[in-house]
Amino acid sequence: QKARDYGVEIGVMKTGKLNSITDVDGVKVGHTTRVEGTTIRTGVTAILPHSGNIFQQKVPAAIYIGNGFGKLAGISQVQELGNLETPIILTNTLSVPMGIQGTVKYTLGLEGNENVRSVNAVVGETNDGGLNDIRGMHISESDVIKAIESATTGQVQEGNVGAGTGTIAFGYKGGIGTSSRLVPKSLGGYTVGVLVQTNFGGVLTIAGVPVGKELNKYPFKNAIEKSDGSCMMVVLTNAPLDARQLERIAKRAMMGLAKTGGIASNGSGDYVIAASTAESMRIPYQTRNTTDNGGVLRNDEMSALFMATIEATEEAIINSLFTAQTMTGNGRTVESIPLNRVISILKSYGVIR
Amino acid sequence: QKARDYGVEIGVMKTGKLNSITDVDGVKVGHTTRVEGTTIRTGVTAILPHSGNIFQQKVPAAIYIGNGFGKLAGISQVQELGNLETPIILTNTLSVPMGIQGTVKYTLGLEGNENVRSVNAVVGETNDGGLNDIRGMHISESDVIKAIESATTGQVQEGNVGAGTGTIAFGYKGGIGTSSRLVPKSLGGYTVGVLVQTNFGGVLTIAGVPVGKELNKYPFKNAIEKSDGSCMMVVLTNAPLDARQLERIAKRAMMGLAKTGGIASNGSGDYVIAASTAESMRIPYQTRNTTDNGGVLRNDEMSALFMATIEATEEAIINSLFTAQTMTGNGRTVESIPLNRVISILKSYGVIR
Amino acid sequence: QKARDYGVEIGVMKTGKLNSITDVDGVKVGHTTRVEGTTIRTGVTAILPHSGNIFQQKVPAAIYIGNGFGKLAGISQVQELGNLETPIILTNTLSVPMGIQGTVKYTLGLEGNENVRSVNAVVGETNDGGLNDIRGMHISESDVIKAIESATTGQVQEGNVGAGTGTIAFGYKGGIGTSSRLVPKSLGGYTVGVLVQTNFGGVLTIAGVPVGKELNKYPFKNAIEKSDGSCMMVVLTNAPLDARQLERIAKRAMMGLAKTGGIASNGSGDYVIAASTAESMRIPYQTRNTTDNGGVLRNDEMSALFMATIEATEEAIINSLFTAQTMTGNGRTVESIPLNRVISILKSYGVIR
Amino acid sequence: QKARDYGVEIGVMKTGKLNSITDVDGVKVGHTTRVEGTTIRTGVTAILPHSGNIFQQKVPAAIYIGNGFGKLAGISQVQELGNLETPIILTNTLSVPMGIQGTVKYTLGLEGNENVRSVNAVVGETNDGGLNDIRGMHISESDVIKAIESATTGQVQEGNVGAGTGTIAFGYKGGIGTSSRLVPKSLGGYTVGVLVQTNFGGVLTIAGVPVGKELNKYPFKNAIEKSDGSCMMVVLTNAPLDARQLERIAKRAMMGLAKTGGIASNGSGDYVIAASTAESMRIPYQTRNTTDNGGVLRNDEMSALFMATIEATEEAIINSLFTAQTMTGNGRTVESIPLNRVISILKSYGVIR
Repeated sequence: QKARDYGVEIGVMKTGKLNSITDVDGVKVGHTTRVEGTTIRTGVTAILPHSGNIFQQKVPAAIYIGNGFGKLAGISQVQELGNLETPIILTNTLSVPMGIQGTVKYTLGLEGNENVRSVNAVVGETNDGGLNDIRGMHISESDVIKAIESATTGQVQEGNVGAGTGTIAFGYKGGIGTSSRLVPKSLGGYTVGVLVQTNFGGVLTIAGVPVGKELNKYPFKNAIEKSDGSCMMVVLTNAPLDARQLERIAKRAMMGLAKTGGIASNGSGDYVIAASTAESMRIPYQTRNTTDNGGVLRNDEMSALFMATIEATEEAIINSLFTAQTMTGNGRTVESIPLNRVISILKSYGVIR
Repeated sequence: QKARDYGVEIGVMKTGKLNSITDVDGVKVGHTTRVEGTTIRTGVTAILPHSGNIFQQKVPAAIYIGNGFGKLAGISQVQELGNLETPIILTNTLSVPMGIQGTVKYTLGLEGNENVRSVNAVVGETNDGGLNDIRGMHISESDVIKAIESATTGQVQEGNVGAGTGTIAFGYKGGIGTSSRLVPKSLGGYTVGVLVQTNFGGVLTIAGVPVGKELNKYPFKNAIEKSDGSCMMVVLTNAPLDARQLERIAKRAMMGLAKTGGIASNGSGDYVIAASTAESMRIPYQTRNTTDNGGVLRNDEMSALFMATIEATEEAIINSLFTAQTMTGNGRTVESIPLNRVISILKSYGVIR
Repeated sequence: QKARDYGVEIGVMKTGKLNSITDVDGVKVGHTTRVEGTTIRTGVTAILPHSGNIFQQKVPAAIYIGNGFGKLAGISQVQELGNLETPIILTNTLSVPMGIQGTVKYTLGLEGNENVRSVNAVVGETNDGGLNDIRGMHISESDVIKAIESATTGQVQEGNVGAGTGTIAFGYKGGIGTSSRLVPKSLGGYTVGVLVQTNFGGVLTIAGVPVGKELNKYPFKNAIEKSDGSCMMVVLTNAPLDARQLERIAKRAMMGLAKTGGIASNGSGDYVIAASTAESMRIPYQTRNTTDNGGVLRNDEMSALFMATIEATEEAIINSLFTAQTMTGNGRTVESIPLNRVISILKSYGVIR
Repeated sequence: QKARDYGVEIGVMKTGKLNSITDVDGVKVGHTTRVEGTTIRTGVTAILPHSGNIFQQKVPAAIYIGNGFGKLAGISQVQELGNLETPIILTNTLSVPMGIQGTVKYTLGLEGNENVRSVNAVVGETNDGGLNDIRGMHISESDVIKAIESATTGQVQEGNVGAGTGTIAFGYKGGIGTSSRLVPKSLGGYTVGVLVQTNFGGVLTIAGVPVGKELNKYPFKNAIEKSDGSCMMVVLTNAPLDARQLERIAKRAMMGLAKTGGIASNGSGDYVIAASTAESMRIPYQTRNTTDNGGVLRNDEMSALFMATIEATEEAIINSLFTAQTMTGNGRTVESIPLNRVISILKSYGVIR
């Protein structure tokens, strides 16, 4: 169950039907979850901006880096060319090479890509080395391809799945979370969807309530606790945005993370990948045209999308905590957030009524 | 009175003695306030990282841009050379040229600068055109020099002073605000001080409480309200940081802004100027040495400073609202936050006890 | 006379009719030249991307910084919003404030701008403090407005005019230079025009010939000579480019500078401002549309424009040297390049035949 | 034989003893060359900034991107933390995942790294898909580890070796090239070494002579030829530079590329990795100190290093062409530069005397 199911409201804008990144039309999500023996607790999550051949029909995209202690692959080509040509893959830190390898092989193998010799895979990661034997590098190419090929529209699994299988956030079990926002019709009626992989720390704050402080669990309390970790954020929208506008959107996701109490600590890899799914903005790999379609949303129309991004990111992070389960792995147990206490704290602050 | 005087606690870290940017040893602040006739409501605020000749003893510095709809002068040289060589000046948008002119003349005129032919003035601004006749361009060189020369250590005036004289935030009267944090001794014992000029919008959030929502005053409520505006943030610390580390610090200030409900709307100029006042990091204009002093704080030691920056920025913004007064100017009246109602909301959320 | 008039050919692409930035349709250039008494040797150059109200009909633009030891105003807003809303002004370092002030007042005063309260002036500079009494800050608002208002299409004055009046390049008299390139029809038929203000050093290289070495005039020869200085480069094109593509264009101008022997020394302010004059790309200040026009040139179509930019920048820099005249000012004489010797060196290398 | 062995002098500064990146004390280079059957023409080149455990003794580093159509891994962590913690690996585009995998396994396996769970591999690439069956993804982890472990100081093999085995530049056989420069003692006496993997196009220019034009082989001649391709540039120096200064150095390498006629075409991945080998600048993975050593070279001292970088990059690129051999692979033959004709052209221009 998501935070909203417990009565937690974040922000002032409406969510989409599923309160999920898949509220953005055509978006698909797939997971490969690897829970094996006592030490493997990891996985892969794939996010597809549309159902076609993404290499042949690229989408405008941008990447913003909140804090760059991370290994996300594919940054510079997205920034230079302003587009995304593969599914977005999330996994663990040391499995980025297999993430690329799997994504490249998947792409080379698609019909129509027989002569393709260059593929820019976008593969993000956080370090699940607390619960997972990360040095074992257990993710394989086929785990990656499986995540891509199993991706579906509709309901998205959250919590201990895919790339969120072994992650930890605010000292509790983190994972995959998702949320969405609808921009009012008069402001364009666009949808913004966010999916996160949470693996970071700070003073956990839910809908403004300093839950981490109340639970007495936060960094620097005794001047000794660490708060390192990372957060991957994927923002998709059907608004017709180009790379420049998407970079602006991406920057706002970090503001959503800030509202959950994250501090982007030194050891964080906080990355935001933003893309537009608008059909009018597709960038064909090959075409006789010398220009791409346009009709980019004006600067003046961006602010509502910014707010939607902030709210959906904040809520996606909180959802990852509400949906994650206690997990034991690699000789360690990480508890899920203590739901009863959290709810009672939220009630005492008047946030759940 | 600052927010803390009403019992509002923001974050988990301790403030400095004055809860002000001047808690960073040697820092001085000065204001020129221009409230004249019915239309002039503007001013200048000068922040000096140390009391010496700043051009001769430059300080490491960085500038981060949250949203760049603004005219801040001096960006590229700070980014290239990694240092600041003048006081930091804040004023209104159309007075940036006079801000530069005044700062340059002040600098050229200092003893020891007789042969200087190039000065990089750092001048930030927000648009006070709501309460002030901004098109009149009323700030003069001497207003700027006066702000610099009147700067003092100790207590900092907040609210409707200097560059905050005519600004508006969250629909209420904004202005100058300041706050500070002390990093625990075991983590270095450094001080971080922040001063802001608030002139932006969003869903006002105080210590996590959605005050703007409770007051029914926030953007996109009726899909018609605008939330444009800007925020200048100055972060100073005595930690020995170089330009790279300071840029990381600067990015965190935007996370503090996010926690107040700011969304960095399209029309925002959200700029952070961060500098280190550590004596060991001074960069002499002329010297026989071919290297500069070092001893830069390690990456691993940064996280507590990040948290301190986030907290101090959040509180500085809130302080600007608590200290500002209702102002009439240019045919318009902007109320200060309704203190009684705000306090009662904060009490109902258990934030003031 | 330009370099080409002496038989010097740079690159492999064709020039436009005037071999000038004004070969880009609609572009206007104006100069205010101030040569007064024995110490004033400075000026202003204004470049207008089109003849209309630029604030009301903004053009897509980007700024790239080769080396940022400079004071160019307007950077962040161009980078954030991707557009230019004023004429581009070039002047001396300490006259940037008057450059902004003049440009703002010009813009506020235009018909239709009566309610404008925010203007982002783009004002570049190099330091003419060798030949000019720069500390005197002699440029006034009206010098700036005069340069804008006197701008015309057609032939552009080069050498010791406008912002190039007192500048020095490669140890010789520098100044304003311009050049253009035509992209072959089959590649789009676009025009690229470049205008430069040269004030930098290195090993002067003309069409590949190490003229500076032959003349025994280059930096670090005796491990004592300085090569500081700056170069402002303005690139305009009628190709339909957005801000992202223009930033790519702007980066290529630095490659043209490299070919003249420039090294972008520590003290250089090497800035490139690139804008598209294509009518289809205009960005109206106010409109009922929520999207801007599109039809942006595809990434695949960019390479010829890159080459055109490199060649035109290289030739514009060389033209500034060929057209500049020996100048005495501020107690110093700087010779123009020794034309006869240069031509004889170029002949001995087979570059002039 | 290098270009200089034929009498070609590039620039005005002195080379190091070997005119190679290994003139920088302690630097090692290793190659794995894979020429098998008729279709495999590829390899790996490893560059080690020092002989110790690089993860435990990181070096300050920066990455600059001339044009980002490429897949270089490791960018964001280098940019955020300002350091390099692995050997630098170069290979082909689709072998980046194996490049990372091999580098990570090599690093995890080093004595002292038993508990390391996060490694930022820096792996560059160009696309050798003309002569090599790149879709076959023939490079293995062990090819990468072999390149690292076989690295030596002293003479560096150039031309068709390692990552240069199958590359093409200016329509001729490219490959690995290297060069170095010595900064005069009075300016610090530092060494700058550059190694490149050339796989790009433009109008080939050797020591200023438009050889490509004379050979009638250059892009856009018939408005049909493509000039895509990439160049990886590695710059090492023993000057005590931090990440900010190294980024400035890295930008100058693109200026060296420009002088060879490169245009950084749309399809180019032009990346520069710069690092300082100065022992005083080492960044230990673990230490009780809270600050790193300092003594960073002052901004004022940088210009000679900039010139050294430009010259060494230009010459390294030319060396790659002089040392490469005609290669047949994947059903295609690419000739080496026609040495006799090139020399005769250079003589006719007076560049070889």
